[in-house]
Amino acid sequence: MSEDPGPTLSERAPYLKPDDAARALARRLLGESRHAALATVTMPDGQPLATRVALSTLPSGDVVLLLSDLSEHSRALASHPRASLLVGHTAPGDGLRQPRLTLRGHVVRLVPGADEARARARYLARLPEAALYADFADFACYSLTIVDGLLNAGFARAHRLDRADLCRDPSPEMEARESAIIRHMNEDHPDSLSRIIASQRTTDQTNWRIATLDPLGFEALSDTGDLVRIDFAQAVVEPEGYRHAFVRLVKEARTKQARAKP
Amino acid sequence: MSEDPGPTLSERAPYLKPDDAARALARRLLGESRHAALATVTMPDGQPLATRVALSTLPSGDVVLLLSDLSEHSRALASHPRASLLVGHTAPGDGLRQPRLTLRGHVVRLVPGADEARARARYLARLPEAALYADFADFACYSLTIVDGLLNAGFARAHRLDRADLCRDPSPEMEARESAIIRHMNEDHPDSLSRIIASQRTTDQTNWRIATLDPLGFEALSDTGDLVRIDFAQAVVEPEGYRHAFVRLVKEARTKQARAKP
Repeated sequence: MSEDPGPTLSERAPYLKPDDAARALARRLLGESRHAALATVTMPDGQPLATRVALSTLPSGDVVLLLSDLSEHSRALASHPRASLLVGHTAPGDGLRQPRLTLRGHVVRLVPGADEARARARYLARLPEAALYADFADFACYSLTIVDGLLNAGFARAHRLDRADLCRDPSPEMEARESAIIRHMNEDHPDSLSRIIASQRTTDQTNWRIATLDPLGFEALSDTGDLVRIDFAQAVVEPEGYRHAFVRLVKEARTKQARAKP
Repeated sequence: MSEDPGPTLSERAPYLKPDDAARALARRLLGESRHAALATVTMPDGQPLATRVALSTLPSGDVVLLLSDLSEHSRALASHPRASLLVGHTAPGDGLRQPRLTLRGHVVRLVPGADEARARARYLARLPEAALYADFADFACYSLTIVDGLLNAGFARAHRLDRADLCRDPSPEMEARESAIIRHMNEDHPDSLSRIIASQRTTDQTNWRIATLDPLGFEALSDTGDLVRIDFAQAVVEPEGYRHAFVRLVKEARTKQARAKP
C-alpha cells in the first residue's frame, strides 16, 4: 500500500477549466450585485461569521466595502483581515442550480487619502443610498483584494478562478481619465449608453448612467436602481482605448438592432 | 487616564434586547429560507469561505444541510466543524435596510442511523428537488447546532439572540408523533391549513402541505414551491399540544376572516 494520501478533495473535485464565458459570468455576477454575503472569522476561536454587506468595485476589479466599526464583521476583520464574498441572486426554484461566485481575499481598511477617496466615490456611485450614512464617524472604507474565486455556474458546473481571471490593473494614466470618460458618456452620449445596454439585456429601463469604469468594462445604474455590468470586447490597455471600446460597443449594438428589425 | 480599554466593540454596539417580535422575525427568516450563505474556514490558514447551501430545519429549530464531499465547504468543515449561516432575501432597493439573520454554530456530519434518516427526511420534505441527488454517494447530511445569532431587522435595528430565542427541544414523545400529525393535517385538513396561511400571509397559493413541524410552529410548501413559516400562539410542550395549537390557529384565522368581511 502506498503512503500517498492521494489527491486532496479539491484536486479530485470536477472543476472545469475557466473559459471566456465563465470569466464573463463571474465578472457579471460581481458587477451586478449590490449586496453580498461576507464571511469573516472571529479570532482566536476561529468562529466563522456570515453577514450581509453592500459592495462596489475598484478599477482593478477588486471589491470595496463600507463597514461600520460597530459591526461584528469589522471587529473580526480588525484581528484577522481575510474574507470571502458570495454574490449571485437566488430566483424562485432550486438555488443550487443558479449561478453564484465565491471570492476569497485579503481585506485592508483604507486610511484617508487619494485611494480612500476614490474607493469611497466608487462605492457611492454604485450605491447612492449609502450617502445617508457614509460620512458617519463609525463608517470606514475597506478594499478586498481578490486572491481567487470559485464560480458555480449550476449543478456540477464549477470553475476555479485565479485573480487574473477577474482582475486587470489599469495604468495610472488610465485611472486618471476614468472620471472624465464616465462624465462624457453620461452627459454627451446617454442614447448610445442606452443602446448598448438594450442590445445586451432584456430591460425596460432607458435612463442609465455609468457608475464605475474599469479596463474590462463598466457598471451602469438605471434611475430605478437596476445595475448592469457590460464587458468591453477586449481589455483596454491605454487611456485612448476607452473611446475605441465604447465606439465598438455602440457599433455592435447598432448591427444587432438592425438585424433584429423585420 | 484609565488603562481600562473600555467596552469591546460588541459591547458598545447598540444591540436592542430581543422581544417576541424579534424572535418571531428571526424564526421566520430561517423558516422561509430555502437557501443561505454558509461561512466556513479553511484551516490551518484561517481563510474564510462563503458558499451557497440549501437548508432545512430540525425539530429543535437547528439546521440541517446536505453537502457534497467534493465541495470546498465540506472540506473546510472536516477540519474545522464551525459555521455561520446568513438567511434573508434581498428585494430591490437597499438590502442593508432589509432584515437578515446570522446564525453561528457547530456542525456535525451525521452518520447513518435514526437521527440521520430524520434529518434527511426533513431536508427532502422542504427541498423535494434535492431527491435527484440526495442519494449520490458523495452527499451527506450535516446538522448545524445553533450557538447564537444576530438579527438585523433593518438599519440600526440589531438584536443579539441566544440559542433559547430560536430553538426548543421537543420531547421524544413529541418527536415520535410528528409524522402522524403532519400526515393528518395534510390529508384530512388541507382547507384548515390553507385558511391558517391565508390569514397570515398575502398569497395566491391555495395548495399547501406541511413540510416540517416543531414545538414552535411549522413550515409549509405550496405546490409552486413557496415556503412559509407559521408560529403557534405558544410553544407546544407535550404531544397532545399539537392538536390544540392547530385548533387555535384555525379559530384565530376564522375570527380574522370574519372581521375582514364587510
